[in-house]
Amino acid sequence: MTAPSVNIEALPLSVDLTRSLQGAAQFVYVDERKLPYELEFATTERWGHVVEAVKTLAVRGAPAIGIAGASALALWASNEGVKQAREGGCVEDAPRFLEQLQEVAEVVQNARPTAVNLMWAVRRMLECARELAGRGCVSWEIADSLFDEVRSMEREDIASNIAIGEHGAKLLPWGARVLTHCNAGSLATVRYGTALGVVYAAAQQGKIERVYADETRPVGQGARLTTWELSRAGVPTTLICDNMAASLMARGAVDAVIVGADRITANGDVANKIGTYGVAVLARHHGVPFYVAAPTSTIDASLCTGADIPIEERDASEVLPRPIPGVDVWNPAFDVTPAQLIDSIVTERGVFKPEEILRAIEEVG
Amino acid sequence: MTAPSVNIEALPLSVDLTRSLQGAAQFVYVDERKLPYELEFATTERWGHVVEAVKTLAVRGAPAIGIAGASALALWASNEGVKQAREGGCVEDAPRFLEQLQEVAEVVQNARPTAVNLMWAVRRMLECARELAGRGCVSWEIADSLFDEVRSMEREDIASNIAIGEHGAKLLPWGARVLTHCNAGSLATVRYGTALGVVYAAAQQGKIERVYADETRPVGQGARLTTWELSRAGVPTTLICDNMAASLMARGAVDAVIVGADRITANGDVANKIGTYGVAVLARHHGVPFYVAAPTSTIDASLCTGADIPIEERDASEVLPRPIPGVDVWNPAFDVTPAQLIDSIVTERGVFKPEEILRAIEEVG
Repeated sequence: MTAPSVNIEALPLSVDLTRSLQGAAQFVYVDERKLPYELEFATTERWGHVVEAVKTLAVRGAPAIGIAGASALALWASNEGVKQAREGGCVEDAPRFLEQLQEVAEVVQNARPTAVNLMWAVRRMLECARELAGRGCVSWEIADSLFDEVRSMEREDIASNIAIGEHGAKLLPWGARVLTHCNAGSLATVRYGTALGVVYAAAQQGKIERVYADETRPVGQGARLTTWELSRAGVPTTLICDNMAASLMARGAVDAVIVGADRITANGDVANKIGTYGVAVLARHHGVPFYVAAPTSTIDASLCTGADIPIEERDASEVLPRPIPGVDVWNPAFDVTPAQLIDSIVTERGVFKPEEILRAIEEVG
Repeated sequence: MTAPSVNIEALPLSVDLTRSLQGAAQFVYVDERKLPYELEFATTERWGHVVEAVKTLAVRGAPAIGIAGASALALWASNEGVKQAREGGCVEDAPRFLEQLQEVAEVVQNARPTAVNLMWAVRRMLECARELAGRGCVSWEIADSLFDEVRSMEREDIASNIAIGEHGAKLLPWGARVLTHCNAGSLATVRYGTALGVVYAAAQQGKIERVYADETRPVGQGARLTTWELSRAGVPTTLICDNMAASLMARGAVDAVIVGADRITANGDVANKIGTYGVAVLARHHGVPFYVAAPTSTIDASLCTGADIPIEERDASEVLPRPIPGVDVWNPAFDVTPAQLIDSIVTERGVFKPEEILRAIEEVG
């Protein structure tokens, strides 16, 4: 049974690597700083602009910044790298190309420290380039392949989100009232989203009564982005301030919490937007199941626990645009939710207990 | 040992009933909507303006709106009531005066529904007027006494806050790092504050290392008021978003939570600013003591539990100034923290376990 009012095709592609009419590689993205009142697509052929878009949160969300980071490398390769490598004057230009690509990659993956998808995507691009160079490809062949690699990652992201939605929707009861924090939606991915991918899949089955969106201070990804995309898709949505979630749960108005993830460590700990950990504590206190939805590219098997995850601290002006003399501000962008507070992690490969999350990459990957 | 940098005399009177040079009663208050960037005192001789100031949160905080409500009655009595009662033309004008005072009281005590101090103050003013009328006083005598009654309430509030500070400071360890939510400070009372009264007393003893102020969305009483007054008094202050409190506690950076109260029921449940309940759950999860500081006038022995307290819901525009089509907003201004999550309630009469809070009014009152 499909609830007729839900239309997820109304959700735009949030990030996309394409070609201009002149054949240059270009990155097209929703400038999320303008939402919810303006849907504005920005286009750039410059890799540095993509890094800037990631730093300024014009593009954000772990899977989306993975695609953005990979696109930055592809833009450099297609629009600058080939030309620069050939300036060496020899046909065997790949070594110089690879060297420069590596330098670009360093800058790109340092754009933001917490989400592992950025590092994952950059590493995948570098591996692709090295593999081709090893097979004797020249710079323009590598550049073309890097472009195609990003396009593959985009298709995989969409397929992954659809699979996450299918797996996750089974966890929700009929008439579910879901609370979510930050935006792990279509705007955080190429399309459809992870946590909201679950919501959309369940809504198409007619299972969603209402979604409560935490405002998510200081940047307001819940207030500006989650509300925008849910209402655009026709999902009944109520915005609350972050500090209202406890009251909502106490009233019995929340059947499940679903959030995304920026990094999942080997033991099942999850780094996600600041405030996620608090919501997890509240959910446990009220007996509300707490679910994390994320692609397996979010898993960082190299880290044992969440204590090892670098937590980005951002500028005080995000919290307090105009300083108050003598008043400090603490502005961590992420927190870590321990595995014990998480009921299940939903990936494109199925639903896992957090302490068994490595099975998601061991069995298939 | 007094920490030399702490100067609580820098805190202004937040609300005060005085007389103009012409002898009219006037209410002087800090317009808190202008803080933290402008300290502006507003003055009015009209009781309706005071009601408006309370409704628009120019004056807020349970003890302060108690004084404001009482002042509204005194303004009516001195500046309008005496004249109107005498229009009856007889010397025995008290009955008409009382009738009209009762009508004004109805409007005043409905300005905001949750804080019981408003009802408490209005009731005290009406009882004072009735008692005087019963003793044969005429309208101008009653009006003068109502003016004096407010002045007494102001002095009592200040004395009460000093006593709360003395009792509460003993609960804090040396080098205490305290988290507070909303503003239960000098700006929420006549002066010094309840929860912050405890902080100031402890800071004067050199016991406070730092205060963390929750932003307190949507109105930002923490971000705008608590930060302003703490920094003005020289107390080291860090502002955080509401959703960062859990992370702060997880890092072991909070030794105690202290908040104010808008109403305390017979069983020790506490209504306070939205978000308080969530902080209490987090404090319990992290083993951090959770204290409430409030004068005994906040105790409503007529209600058995917090479930009976009316919770004010305010306009959506406070959360989302410009609506997003299709997006609802839920904006409760208060929540209820159950007695089980509260370690102690600090009153001017000492420190009580929440379940024994009635002793605070039975023994002495």
